[in-house]
Order: sequence, then C-alpha cells, then structure tokens
Amino acid sequence: MDDVITNLANALRCLPGVGPKSAQRMVYHLLKMHREKGLHLAKCLDLAMHSVRNCERCNNYTTENRCAICTSSRRDKSTFCIVESPADIQAIEQSKAFLGSYYVLMGKISPLDGVGVEDIGLPKLRSVMEQEGVQEIILALSSSVEGLATSHAIRELLRDLPIRISQLAQGIPSGSELEFLDGNTITNALRNRALFSFE
Amino acid sequence: MDDVITNLANALRCLPGVGPKSAQRMVYHLLKMHREKGLHLAKCLDLAMHSVRNCERCNNYTTENRCAICTSSRRDKSTFCIVESPADIQAIEQSKAFLGSYYVLMGKISPLDGVGVEDIGLPKLRSVMEQEGVQEIILALSSSVEGLATSHAIRELLRDLPIRISQLAQGIPSGSELEFLDGNTITNALRNRALFSFE
Repeated sequence: MDDVITNLANALRCLPGVGPKSAQRMVYHLLKMHREKGLHLAKCLDLAMHSVRNCERCNNYTTENRCAICTSSRRDKSTFCIVESPADIQAIEQSKAFLGSYYVLMGKISPLDGVGVEDIGLPKLRSVMEQEGVQEIILALSSSVEGLATSHAIRELLRDLPIRISQLAQGIPSGSELEFLDGNTITNALRNRALFSFE
Repeated sequence: MDDVITNLANALRCLPGVGPKSAQRMVYHLLKMHREKGLHLAKCLDLAMHSVRNCERCNNYTTENRCAICTSSRRDKSTFCIVESPADIQAIEQSKAFLGSYYVLMGKISPLDGVGVEDIGLPKLRSVMEQEGVQEIILALSSSVEGLATSHAIRELLRDLPIRISQLAQGIPSGSELEFLDGNTITNALRNRALFSFE
C-alpha cells in the first residue's frame, strides 16, 4: 500500500478511540466518495490547531483575546463557575441553567501525574476573583479524588476573600434507575436528601 | 462556543463511526495536547485527498500511474485475484498467501442501488485479461447476493477466454467455534467438506 495512504491511516490514530482498523476504514471511506469532505476537514483542522487559544480571562477556548462568554453583556459577572476543562463549559451551557461566568482550571490537582497547585492556574484564579468583585463561586469539578483535592485547594486559596463558595449537588442523576446506581452515589443521595416543605 | 471549534467538530463527522459526542471529544483532545498531531493529520489528509488516484491497470489506490503491486517484478502476472475494493487487497496482502496480481472492481453489481455491469469496470476487466495472457483468476468477492451476481457476470464476460476461474473456498473461518456459526456457513462447510487422503 502506498505511503500516502499508510501515513494518513497512522495520522488518524491521534484521534481518541481510533485504532488501526477504524483508521483504515476511515481512509478508504474518504478516498472512495468523500474527498471534498476530507479536504474540508483538513482545512478546519489546520485553522483550529493554529487559531484556537485560551481566553485571557477564563482560559476557555477562543480565537479572540476573550471568549464569547466573557465578552457577553448578558452574563452575570458576580457568579463564577469553576470547571476543569472547556468541554465542561459546553456541557453546562447545554443545560441553559447557568448565566454567570466561568473559569477553566485546565486540569485538576493530581500529585501522581505531577500536577500541582501552580500547574492548573490557581494563582491566576485568585487574581481574577479579586479583580472582578465576585460574590459567589460554584465548584463544578469531577467527583474524584483529584477533583476533591482541587476543590480543597481552591477553598484554601480563597479563604480570606468575601466570596460564597458552593459545589454542585451530589445525588442521583436525572432519569436514572436506582438498581443500576453505585453505592457511593446512593450514599451521597441519602446524606443530601431533600426535605419536603409543606407551605 | 467558537465557530472554528464547531466547524471542526462538524467536519470530523464525515469520518465513519464518528457522531456528535465523539467528534466533540476529538476536538478537545487535539486542542488540549495534540496540536502538532492535528496539524500533521491535516497535512496527510490534504495530500491523500489530492494525490491518491486509481492504478491504470488494476484500479488499486496509488499516487503513481501504476500501483506498487502492478509494478513489482516479484508478482505473478498470470494469476489475478478479483476484489471489490482496495481495502480487500490490503486484507489479502496481510495473509501473505497470494503472490499474483489484483484487479479491483470498485464496487459490485447492485440493481437496487443502480449499479450495473458497466459501472464496476467489467469492460476494462475483459480488456486487461486479454492483454495480459492471464491463466487463472480467483474471484474474492463478498458472499452476498450482490457478490454472487457480480461473480456470475464475470464468468459470463470471460466465458470465451481460455482462463481458469475459481472462487475463494466457503467454509468455517479459522479459529471459530461451531456453536456461534450461522446455518449458511455450516451448510457450505458441509457441502464443501474435504476428504482426508491416506497416502
């Protein structure tokens, strides 16, 4: 097989979830009937890899100095949601339930991987929080050991600022069936149970 | 989210097996830590989409006039294996069990999809077979109704040429367990059973 084809199949394997067999299938699929789409993909890739950078305020991905959320006049600047990655912003935006600002840590504290407090933009977080006169921050971090360590570090970092700090509620996910939930989730759901109030 | 990112996610969906969620995951994966690989992929894509064409003799993919197999002096030119697509060549080459030449139909007869005898290079097949003084052709087509129809058309097409025509053996695949095989496969394996010869 020609080098050009082999090289393309190898290059496709940089995509997550693409192994040798599916890379090969992709190559033949594009060559057989989707050359225009393949060329379009090459252009989009090139443009995105070159032009996407981090928002200077919140670290979200953008092609400008500041991202669309930071520059929007319709977003509340007094409430910040702290997330680990820009993908988390997209997930929260899809819920349409949050109209404040974001701050992206670009990672979480993970001593085993050599990721410490300085590596995930915590110093910058403090300076942004001080400058903006923030009133509340919501920690929307993953519910793992690393997420908990990061949450702890942020609370320590902002301890002396007059900011309310909350975190996402822990409980059963929407639409789930109890029999398939793990013990930790049920423990959290019981511990954080919501009292009915009769008015 | 920025247009550049959305466009890249949409463009990735031209790859088979990539839906909206996995396209998004790919974008963030590349942006976060694999920009060089993303740029390399863009280059490989561009090159392959522009430079890969069909071998003038066998229709296999190549960047030259003739593919590497057709120009190799080590391949037997008197035996041709007829396949549906260049991907089939790669599968057969991996077995290292065939050292002849190939001819790629680039499809199979499928009246329901409007693919007839002229659409899959059968006229060219006859002229190549006449020019090359071929002695045997092996039909390595898929074992479907379309494959059988194509096989029948090829035998009709070459009926008056002094060429032996064979097809791949039908039986149980290597390493398979009988209990998981379908009835047609077992029927074929029984019908084509191999007699032990005691010498």
